[in-house]
Amino acid sequence: MADIYHVGPSLPVPRGRLHGEIRQRMMHTFRERSGLPLEDHGVVVLQGGKTPHLYNSDNEPLFRQEAFFQHLFGVNDREDCLGAVDLRTGRATLFVPRLPPEYAVWMGRILSPAELQARYAVEEVRYTDEVAEALEELAPPCLHVLDGGVNTDSGLPMPPVSFQGIENFKLEKEALYPVLCECRVFKSALEVEAMRYACQVASRAHVAVMQAVKPGMWEFQAESLYLHSIYAGGGCRLPHYTPIFAGGPNAAILHYGHAGAPNDRQLQDGELLLVDAGADYYRYSADITTTFPVNGRFTEQQKLVYEAVLAANRGVIAAMKPGVRWPDMQLLAERTILAALERGGLLRGDVADMLEARVGALFMPHGLGHLLGLDTHDVGGYLPGHPERPEGAGLNRLRTARVLEEGMVITVEPGCYFSRALLEPAFGDPRLSSFLVDTALRAFVDLGGVRIEDDVLITATGAESLCDVPRTVEEVEAVMAGAPWPPAAA
Amino acid sequence: MADIYHVGPSLPVPRGRLHGEIRQRMMHTFRERSGLPLEDHGVVVLQGGKTPHLYNSDNEPLFRQEAFFQHLFGVNDREDCLGAVDLRTGRATLFVPRLPPEYAVWMGRILSPAELQARYAVEEVRYTDEVAEALEELAPPCLHVLDGGVNTDSGLPMPPVSFQGIENFKLEKEALYPVLCECRVFKSALEVEAMRYACQVASRAHVAVMQAVKPGMWEFQAESLYLHSIYAGGGCRLPHYTPIFAGGPNAAILHYGHAGAPNDRQLQDGELLLVDAGADYYRYSADITTTFPVNGRFTEQQKLVYEAVLAANRGVIAAMKPGVRWPDMQLLAERTILAALERGGLLRGDVADMLEARVGALFMPHGLGHLLGLDTHDVGGYLPGHPERPEGAGLNRLRTARVLEEGMVITVEPGCYFSRALLEPAFGDPRLSSFLVDTALRAFVDLGGVRIEDDVLITATGAESLCDVPRTVEEVEAVMAGAPWPPAAA
Repeated sequence: MADIYHVGPSLPVPRGRLHGEIRQRMMHTFRERSGLPLEDHGVVVLQGGKTPHLYNSDNEPLFRQEAFFQHLFGVNDREDCLGAVDLRTGRATLFVPRLPPEYAVWMGRILSPAELQARYAVEEVRYTDEVAEALEELAPPCLHVLDGGVNTDSGLPMPPVSFQGIENFKLEKEALYPVLCECRVFKSALEVEAMRYACQVASRAHVAVMQAVKPGMWEFQAESLYLHSIYAGGGCRLPHYTPIFAGGPNAAILHYGHAGAPNDRQLQDGELLLVDAGADYYRYSADITTTFPVNGRFTEQQKLVYEAVLAANRGVIAAMKPGVRWPDMQLLAERTILAALERGGLLRGDVADMLEARVGALFMPHGLGHLLGLDTHDVGGYLPGHPERPEGAGLNRLRTARVLEEGMVITVEPGCYFSRALLEPAFGDPRLSSFLVDTALRAFVDLGGVRIEDDVLITATGAESLCDVPRTVEEVEAVMAGAPWPPAAA
Repeated sequence: MADIYHVGPSLPVPRGRLHGEIRQRMMHTFRERSGLPLEDHGVVVLQGGKTPHLYNSDNEPLFRQEAFFQHLFGVNDREDCLGAVDLRTGRATLFVPRLPPEYAVWMGRILSPAELQARYAVEEVRYTDEVAEALEELAPPCLHVLDGGVNTDSGLPMPPVSFQGIENFKLEKEALYPVLCECRVFKSALEVEAMRYACQVASRAHVAVMQAVKPGMWEFQAESLYLHSIYAGGGCRLPHYTPIFAGGPNAAILHYGHAGAPNDRQLQDGELLLVDAGADYYRYSADITTTFPVNGRFTEQQKLVYEAVLAANRGVIAAMKPGVRWPDMQLLAERTILAALERGGLLRGDVADMLEARVGALFMPHGLGHLLGLDTHDVGGYLPGHPERPEGAGLNRLRTARVLEEGMVITVEPGCYFSRALLEPAFGDPRLSSFLVDTALRAFVDLGGVRIEDDVLITATGAESLCDVPRTVEEVEAVMAGAPWPPAAA
């Protein structure tokens, strides 16, 4: 039994190396921050994800491991575990449920602790009914747990770890959460490899959709094709987040695609389709947005908006490198888009004044991008010691305000939308309306909007997109007309 | 705004009629059972499903409505609602969350109460912050709630209803759960129409897989194709339960396909593929199993097992009608399969003795079938006043032991598996081993198993399968060789 994760012919992921490196990094970060003598360090204890149920029925939706647990232990396929890492030695113990013999009939062969140890490449595997006993053997000064750590995107706390006998240990609830979040911000080479793979799979699926879409198709049919491409073509069973397939005006609904707006519009000749869809590989997320004309040819109006957003996307990626403040990139994107809209006759006035008045947030009400990793909106955006959430419309939607550092993966997703819900009030707001060319803007409302999103790795000297999809108007139109992607070598 | 549910060109479902009929039936059942004067009846209050989260992240998996709430109110696409039905008048009130203006930017246009009333065809729509006030206006003697009602498949209780001011009402927790379960057991004509549609969509997808499968393909690639077929081809975004695509020996793992056994085997020439996959349409479940040879031709060995199971499936469906006890159908299926195995030289002795010794459970460790509806394992299997769970291996896995009645929809899914986990102990068990032809059985272990599952409606005089897939060896081989399904008219 090897420790290699793969789904058929998909990318092989060596669990032992990937998570072993992460546990080492976590341990060293912890030790450095605390400054305690080695023997005073405790044991990190994490609760794995539990068997999910659809309400109180016996329907069990597909299990997805809790992200912190996945990060440290790589047990993406096994429910109801616990895990421990001794900060004094680095030894990892995985605790698995003791399965009844019937498990073999209903769920599959029961692996022995030795087989599980080989599969997950941890130092030891024991049963969850032995957690207290095993931890007592380690006699730790305390257990470090994530209890109560708050996700800055959801506002939700981590639930408490729970096992029989936990009351006999001293729990330390403050130190671990920021350390693990900080570790998750920086991707190792093996993590980048997994994310690059997810991005490649998702990129190919975006291209497949571009090549298949035509007027009369329904948004959900394009979504279905996308999902088939990432799964059959890449072993990604899940898209990681609910895909957005937003035709025409729906593109202005930022989180379109959910159960209440389920990608059920029929695509019309002459309109754009905005596709924001990712892929989940070994719990790592891709998150890519493409926008293209349903009939394969951009109108002049669409081209104006598309090229404004593309310039923002490209300009930001070109400017990204270690040391750059992320909110500055948001302003760069806004400036690029506002200037293009001004040149196009949709806005009037000085772009600097527009920025000051936060006109940008009228057209891009969301943040420019977010950290990406095991969660699509990955943790670590607002940790102690890093910049706080900025003020100002749009800027306050940023999921991080950090200074870029090598090893981060962050999305770059400028957008320009014509949202009635935002424009109508703005026409009546004297602070904003002076910049707005009312009649010109009203002519754009049916366009919906454009978003162009790359997943970008910060390198030592710059930034590299992990995505590979047609981006320029010419590239998109060529692929939609049947040209191969990537383009055939000259 | 019409009250018609549909996903593009999929089946139109008239919410008002469908759920209005169900609420009427619920009310009359309640009144009949209680025997109380009209004015002494209370108000039924149900809690709708809540916004789901992937652990404490902001990832919101696709919302699926709680099944009892869906049954009474048909709000399949809207989270965090409550609903009330006054048992004195039948009036239904839907309570929806008051949405902030930003909802329009992120999620879509905010519908007014009047629009929601038209969409869901209830008598009134109010906000969830008005529940106590609205219920006080009704001055009910009590509120009937589902709190604590236990699902007999999962063993899990319904969580308590919760709203501000609930402490001012008298809660009645016993009466409602069995009434609603009993109502869900019997499908109305409109419910049957939705389920028939789901079964048609799933049937077409099974055929698509049969036509595409070939040696070298991976199980998950076939699953992906299946999912694409039900979604793009039928508007079914979800398969309702995790699909089982079990090649070769995996077919003997009854719930194969979960995260720990994720359909990741490469299909081999000469082996069978067992596909147990459904479709979710408007929350109604299809649940179909087909089994077929990866290379398109059954071997003699496979044919022996396949035809035994098919005879059981067909024999049971032919015998089903109102008044028939479900456990008797399990015994009929077992008898059919055991006799075929005896004729094939895999078993020896008298079939009646085998039934007595529960040899059937060695080859079919699961129940013959389960009620089907809004849940795949639908509620109502073991209600007060109906037969209790039978004893005996296999029989004790039945999810219901009821007497069949018109309007029930139940799966008929006989199977015959060669599971090492069951056979190895049986070879050493003197009570069982005398029936087993050891060497002959060992030659079948790599075959895995066969399951053939239909979704069957009980009619006034018999039973009707809602599925339409190739079933005989000849039909399966013809479709896999390229023949159309359904067969072209002669």
